[in-house]
Amino acid sequence: MRMGNIYSRVPADLPDELFEDIVVTGEVKIERIISDAHSSPPGFWYDQEKSEWVVLLRGSAGVRFEGAEETIVLRPGDWINIPAHQKHRVEWTDPNEKSIWLAVHY
Amino acid sequence: MRMGNIYSRVPADLPDELFEDIVVTGEVKIERIISDAHSSPPGFWYDQEKSEWVVLLRGSAGVRFEGAEETIVLRPGDWINIPAHQKHRVEWTDPNEKSIWLAVHY
Repeated sequence: MRMGNIYSRVPADLPDELFEDIVVTGEVKIERIISDAHSSPPGFWYDQEKSEWVVLLRGSAGVRFEGAEETIVLRPGDWINIPAHQKHRVEWTDPNEKSIWLAVHY
Repeated sequence: MRMGNIYSRVPADLPDELFEDIVVTGEVKIERIISDAHSSPPGFWYDQEKSEWVVLLRGSAGVRFEGAEETIVLRPGDWINIPAHQKHRVEWTDPNEKSIWLAVHY
């Protein structure tokens, strides 16, 4: 039995987004992501083999899906279920506080 | 692509704990649980076929594992990874506000 806190151990300096595995099996990965005003590089799209359910727990973020004109703004508690190979990118994350995501890849 | 907010649509009255599926496949289930001062019935132990990663996002709760003398107190952000068949029970949940859990069964 392992325990932790999703809001703890947040590094003060985050030159890059931080991806931390919490649970990893052959079928599922649960990870915490911490963004500090990071965004996806210009022209980059995530194109993932697995589906991803992701919830933003702290901060804010803008996510865009391929073919969509509008960026979806996420606030704490907002979740998105992203089917495998649905291309998406993070346009921006909160400039004023670190954003904490919880993602389940399945 | 589906969206939602983990803190939204919380019923005012909750005679029973509320279990809501968010994602269900053959291998994984993501669910929201809302407790309103509920606890496991006396003598009841969860004994689950699957492992469960569960995070408390709002409220507070006391969880006890079989063979342990102490109840583990959970506050917002605290998570536990519970191996399959590790018996456990919820001794109490917050009497003053509704407690919101996110569970991933895998």
